[in-house]
Amino acid sequence: MELLKNKIREEGKVLPGNILKVDSFLNHQMDVKLFNEMGKEFKKRMEGKKIDKILTIEASGIGIATILSQHFDYVPVVFAKKIASANMDKEVYHSRVQSFTKNKIYDVVVNKRFINKKERILIIDDFLANGCAACGLIDVVRQAEAEPVAVGIVIEKGFQPGRSEIEKQGVPVESLAIIDKLEEGQVYFK
Amino acid sequence: MELLKNKIREEGKVLPGNILKVDSFLNHQMDVKLFNEMGKEFKKRMEGKKIDKILTIEASGIGIATILSQHFDYVPVVFAKKIASANMDKEVYHSRVQSFTKNKIYDVVVNKRFINKKERILIIDDFLANGCAACGLIDVVRQAEAEPVAVGIVIEKGFQPGRSEIEKQGVPVESLAIIDKLEEGQVYFK
Repeated sequence: MELLKNKIREEGKVLPGNILKVDSFLNHQMDVKLFNEMGKEFKKRMEGKKIDKILTIEASGIGIATILSQHFDYVPVVFAKKIASANMDKEVYHSRVQSFTKNKIYDVVVNKRFINKKERILIIDDFLANGCAACGLIDVVRQAEAEPVAVGIVIEKGFQPGRSEIEKQGVPVESLAIIDKLEEGQVYFK
Repeated sequence: MELLKNKIREEGKVLPGNILKVDSFLNHQMDVKLFNEMGKEFKKRMEGKKIDKILTIEASGIGIATILSQHFDYVPVVFAKKIASANMDKEVYHSRVQSFTKNKIYDVVVNKRFINKKERILIIDDFLANGCAACGLIDVVRQAEAEPVAVGIVIEKGFQPGRSEIEKQGVPVESLAIIDKLEEGQVYFK
């Protein structure tokens, strides 16, 4: 998606350790006009696929998923919570996830009332790197006997194993921008 | 706002300890059509007031604030982060906040790049009870020498001191539904 790539080129900051900072428009301050353009693009890529619900994870996925719902006939959006492994009650589906960026383990948690059997779920997140969060969401969807139709990502770090981890689960990945490498302060797209 | 009150009557669950659970449409699963109606109502209530930016706090404020931006000419949305009192760097404004619901203390954190001097800021949150989060956001806005125009709330617990705490700061409160009491599983509005 050219518009998004240009925005990343203009405002993204490359930091040591393969970190791309896009907090001026994606995950701290949010550019809602851009989110709507992203919504249109996701809609186009999901052409002909029935989507019953959008599932994302707090916090940075929420804004994108909410705007996206408008492009999918206002289907409900559910955001999974990240909980530092407390005792889980019977009311929830949960999946253990490793966060490499934050170097900790947490649980992805969704109340059982909000994913129903056979529902066709579009999973959305802002970043894809190692794929742990997305795989946790896929796990939760399958626990509910629902169907993960696709994982939609805004920015994919193409040099990390996230995509192949998700594809191993049999779920297709749609990323709006795929980064080939981050080098000397520059972003190179695939 | 009648539509919202009806939704609360239909789907809200009153739990012991003055807890109102509205996770089927507000803060776990989200009804984006309703969010747009809330956006229209906030816009009406802010009639004639210039708004440069919307500020909210992760996680449940994000969906509402994002949709709301569309009703205010797509002004940028910033969500403050909740950080369990780490060392704060010089790049951020922060304010210490007590969470009564979760019985812990955290910092409301916003990068300095995202609130500018003299900007007119609309603060948004899903719930108002003791007003701690909203007062933390007001504090952050004032550290930046920006102006908190109003605090917009979806559901206010009118029997708790949040409103008066915010008004003490000289900031008006606009709530879409004000609860008078929660009793025997029933919600009574003001």
